[in-house]
Amino acid sequence: MTSTTSTTPATLVVLPADVQDLLFKEAHTAHTYTDEPVTDAQIAAVHELVKNGPTSLNSQPLRGVLVRSDEARARLVAHMAPGNQAKTLKAPLVVVLAADLHFHETLHRVAPHVPDARNLFTDEQVRHDAAVLNAALQIAYFIVGVRAAGLAVGPMSGFDARAVTDEFFPGGRHRALVVANIGRPGPDAFRPRAPRLAFDEVFTSV
Amino acid sequence: MTSTTSTTPATLVVLPADVQDLLFKEAHTAHTYTDEPVTDAQIAAVHELVKNGPTSLNSQPLRGVLVRSDEARARLVAHMAPGNQAKTLKAPLVVVLAADLHFHETLHRVAPHVPDARNLFTDEQVRHDAAVLNAALQIAYFIVGVRAAGLAVGPMSGFDARAVTDEFFPGGRHRALVVANIGRPGPDAFRPRAPRLAFDEVFTSV
Repeated sequence: MTSTTSTTPATLVVLPADVQDLLFKEAHTAHTYTDEPVTDAQIAAVHELVKNGPTSLNSQPLRGVLVRSDEARARLVAHMAPGNQAKTLKAPLVVVLAADLHFHETLHRVAPHVPDARNLFTDEQVRHDAAVLNAALQIAYFIVGVRAAGLAVGPMSGFDARAVTDEFFPGGRHRALVVANIGRPGPDAFRPRAPRLAFDEVFTSV
Repeated sequence: MTSTTSTTPATLVVLPADVQDLLFKEAHTAHTYTDEPVTDAQIAAVHELVKNGPTSLNSQPLRGVLVRSDEARARLVAHMAPGNQAKTLKAPLVVVLAADLHFHETLHRVAPHVPDARNLFTDEQVRHDAAVLNAALQIAYFIVGVRAAGLAVGPMSGFDARAVTDEFFPGGRHRALVVANIGRPGPDAFRPRAPRLAFDEVFTSV
């Protein structure tokens, strides 16, 4: 690992510094928001940007519900952890992000290059795990995409996942994974940055 | 959804067009690579860029093994699906990406703002699911970061996950999720883009 000390990391990243800040370095999870609405057009633009992000067999199991009505918002907030309720009530837009556990039914359209792709997922556990893994990848692309649209995001996993799934994805073929608040950051939106693990705590070599 | 037709999506994304292309729009999973090495310094720069990406309670469960030796590469390739073996053998760098299922032991350091965070994960299934979800988010940030370093990536889930876990994360406290080939794209590196789901197939409103 001596090589890491001899080169400035920033020079190895080809992104402009302001973009590095926008997407990652200075981006923070937001806990308050202004009243400025977040439009469907903005979310569609985020989707258009990140839709090509890679998933296994191009499976794209992510599904989202934009919680627009006051009635739906109230149903959601009731299932959030206490510490997440106030901000989820106030955010300009809240999106429930879930995995489609029956994504194999769409593979003939999205993975035409693998004619028998559907048959790789007859085992329910294998299918579930692939759905969750790939939907989570897409949730991260979506988070980066929201920031690329100049918006702040507050992703949360503190909620009753079974209840939220039943409320917003009835039918038993989805699993809610993340609820994301989205908007322009408001007053005192950000908490101090918590510590990050060092490179050599995350990566080893063999 | 009429609003999506009245505004050009590109104008709602504040990223420069060339950065949109680099990270998402023109980025493709690579299937061949040049011989140019990928250094530890490059991967450290990627880590430095994306380490602030959000995870639940700042848990950061991602762990990676950089497969550097020929001997380790051979052990890995033996557990890849047949269609992934040749490219995994030839890529300049291969990284095994896994979830640390015991991430709760690190929470006192990374989530000092939640003194009892560890106690939220005494249930093994809850902890496992949180580890996989959050490691998958970090894998996606890592994929975006590799592209931000001007490199191509070929993430794969077609491998014997149990065998790869045992080989590269012995001890039973991890779960291998993705194996990623990394390098400069070589000849015929990219396949034609497979179809993506439309916005209204992924998102609905309530």
